[in-house]
Amino acid sequence: MITAEQARKIIAAGEARATEIGVPVNIAVLDAGVNLKAFGRMDGALLGSIDIALGKARTAALFGMPTEAIGEFSKPGGTSPGLEQTNGGLVVFAGGLPLRDASGILIGAVGISGGAVAQDLDIAQAAAAALGN
Amino acid sequence: MITAEQARKIIAAGEARATEIGVPVNIAVLDAGVNLKAFGRMDGALLGSIDIALGKARTAALFGMPTEAIGEFSKPGGTSPGLEQTNGGLVVFAGGLPLRDASGILIGAVGISGGAVAQDLDIAQAAAAALGN
Amino acid sequence: MITAEQARKIIAAGEARATEIGVPVNIAVLDAGVNLKAFGRMDGALLGSIDIALGKARTAALFGMPTEAIGEFSKPGGTSPGLEQTNGGLVVFAGGLPLRDASGILIGAVGISGGAVAQDLDIAQAAAAALGN
Amino acid sequence: MITAEQARKIIAAGEARATEIGVPVNIAVLDAGVNLKAFGRMDGALLGSIDIALGKARTAALFGMPTEAIGEFSKPGGTSPGLEQTNGGLVVFAGGLPLRDASGILIGAVGISGGAVAQDLDIAQAAAAALGN
Repeated sequence: MITAEQARKIIAAGEARATEIGVPVNIAVLDAGVNLKAFGRMDGALLGSIDIALGKARTAALFGMPTEAIGEFSKPGGTSPGLEQTNGGLVVFAGGLPLRDASGILIGAVGISGGAVAQDLDIAQAAAAALGN
Repeated sequence: MITAEQARKIIAAGEARATEIGVPVNIAVLDAGVNLKAFGRMDGALLGSIDIALGKARTAALFGMPTEAIGEFSKPGGTSPGLEQTNGGLVVFAGGLPLRDASGILIGAVGISGGAVAQDLDIAQAAAAALGN
Repeated sequence: MITAEQARKIIAAGEARATEIGVPVNIAVLDAGVNLKAFGRMDGALLGSIDIALGKARTAALFGMPTEAIGEFSKPGGTSPGLEQTNGGLVVFAGGLPLRDASGILIGAVGISGGAVAQDLDIAQAAAAALGN
Repeated sequence: MITAEQARKIIAAGEARATEIGVPVNIAVLDAGVNLKAFGRMDGALLGSIDIALGKARTAALFGMPTEAIGEFSKPGGTSPGLEQTNGGLVVFAGGLPLRDASGILIGAVGISGGAVAQDLDIAQAAAAALGN
């Protein structure tokens, strides 16, 4: 189970990277049961990205995969058309990553939104790396 | 009308096949009135697949067809574009099968989710076969 | 984390007690993250009780308390008027119980619906007792 | 407009007070536009209180009043029966407080949930005091 201390470090690492590349973002951290653990909106981050950050974290926690992997399954010609409509709606572009402990157990997920998709993913990777494993 | 005893056998057969191929899944059984009869989440099955298993069983029960048959109707160029948006959202990839009694009467449906689509279908077929007709 | 094996035993114990007192019920088991683990509807159980059993289990899992304890908080003159409207709607009469492991850790919840409230609670207690601690 | 730095201080002050009185809580901070700014769930806080903390902050931000003041208007015999059903549902017991800057301008709200109502209010007051005005 992800701790409040871990969630704080993840958000701080994400914010540090976002500041470095000059993109204010929203950062959501969920636990392995897909329940909200922590959230932070940087000053200047888009309001429309609040829901997207939460949705990316939710998608990554539900499936234990990066959000864009779900996008591969659900895209035209993919194995699971309409997958993105399940679970009340998923977010299937990059910026959501599963969080695992040192033994590989899923402990939650982080979702980033506010920049270009590649920037969101970059920040998500920096945030997830704060777990140090 | 599907019985609790039949639902239990269907779930047990699905779990046995899922264990055999090493894929933990969610298994939902609905009756012919499209109401939940039984459900089981195997240890390790994805949380995001709970809703999909329920959705596959619901889709198959609503139309008395395998879920992927509905996908044929609703795909680009199919006869019924947008069909997958009806009924509050359908799941139109494989893994949901109608359940029929020995005389062919629809008694419900089973939905499987957690593996690759082909695996889910394989497990759904094993589950449905538990009816023994 | 509650296991599939534990969930099966809980449902079986609930069904045994329900049969003993002659009341077909719906039984829902959720994990500590408030996600569906297993469900069973006995033959003859009311369809309207499916949602109530799920709602009782959800309420007990969300708060780690029997559902009727939440009812005490939310009743007229209670400390938290309208509490039952939070979380998308709670079920605040008896029949939902938290499930704890031998060391007292919350591992999920069981919800029973189909009989009179006192019967549902009786069956929920029998179901929860299957954990053997 | 509330800043990320202010939100962090508010949450830290709330957590410090919650730790002091031994009650793990959820803390939500919204801005004056009623949009989520920051959130933290302390380890051990009830999952059912996530939605309540968010709802208290939302209610206090929507009306610029403590949540229990809205409860006075909406209670039986109050001036505005049913008020608590507006805005998609309000939370009308104590634990949500408006946040104002030094000149009294509304800049957001904080919502606390996880303890008894009096404890939640106590923690909310400690959290709001972190603004230092």
